[in-house]
Amino acid sequence: MDKKELEDSLKFLPRFDAQGLIPCITTSARSGKVLMLAYMNEEALKKSLETGEAHYWSRSRGELWHKGASSGHVQRIIEMRVDCDQDCVWISVDMDEEASCHTGRRSCFYRKVVKNEGGSPALEWVDEDLLFDPETVYKK
Amino acid sequence: MDKKELEDSLKFLPRFDAQGLIPCITTSARSGKVLMLAYMNEEALKKSLETGEAHYWSRSRGELWHKGASSGHVQRIIEMRVDCDQDCVWISVDMDEEASCHTGRRSCFYRKVVKNEGGSPALEWVDEDLLFDPETVYKK
Repeated sequence: MDKKELEDSLKFLPRFDAQGLIPCITTSARSGKVLMLAYMNEEALKKSLETGEAHYWSRSRGELWHKGASSGHVQRIIEMRVDCDQDCVWISVDMDEEASCHTGRRSCFYRKVVKNEGGSPALEWVDEDLLFDPETVYKK
Repeated sequence: MDKKELEDSLKFLPRFDAQGLIPCITTSARSGKVLMLAYMNEEALKKSLETGEAHYWSRSRGELWHKGASSGHVQRIIEMRVDCDQDCVWISVDMDEEASCHTGRRSCFYRKVVKNEGGSPALEWVDEDLLFDPETVYKK
């Protein structure tokens, strides 16, 4: 792949890794905050572009994943960007209720890394609020 | 690894992939916008936490990468978060001059994905401004 073409042209040449995946950063179009990181395969990227709704590849389930199909929390893509060497995409999304994490929280990034008294890294809650009950939503 | 411990505890248990890497989303503490996605190995994560400056693992060069060591554009970590299943970190950073991309631009995400006249995906410039000349900076 020509470096100049990847980095300086207006050709969309997404580069999938050895597993056929490209990481996708998903941020909130409202707050700008990071909601999640997930992966797309070629089909998921195509479906996302065609439908305007985020589709990922679920690595744990090994299947195409239309985000919100189970929970109702569909992500409408407001903008998609690609990085310099086209091995990562970034989507900014709008959602009726901004509940992106399977734990029921707004964002998957609900804990920050801090140092504990001994100087070792530990976590601290940033957002504990559950916007939905995963037990109910995913077991329908 | 216990799912509850990963997702609901305050233990920092970062999960590195088969290559020993964890993806890191880097956003601007000023604007909140995504600057780049890079990868950390265990050492890079440790150095980032110890020094408060972003260290990554350069996959292209196969070496520890203290961001800004060549360009001067060091990233001071304001906050680090980890996602639900602890296989991704997110850092919010402050920089003297916010030039994060090796192409000389503020962010690696300087092009958006649009549909061209035929309906196929193509790119469009969002930010063409070069904050530094990569030819000069990286060939010192």
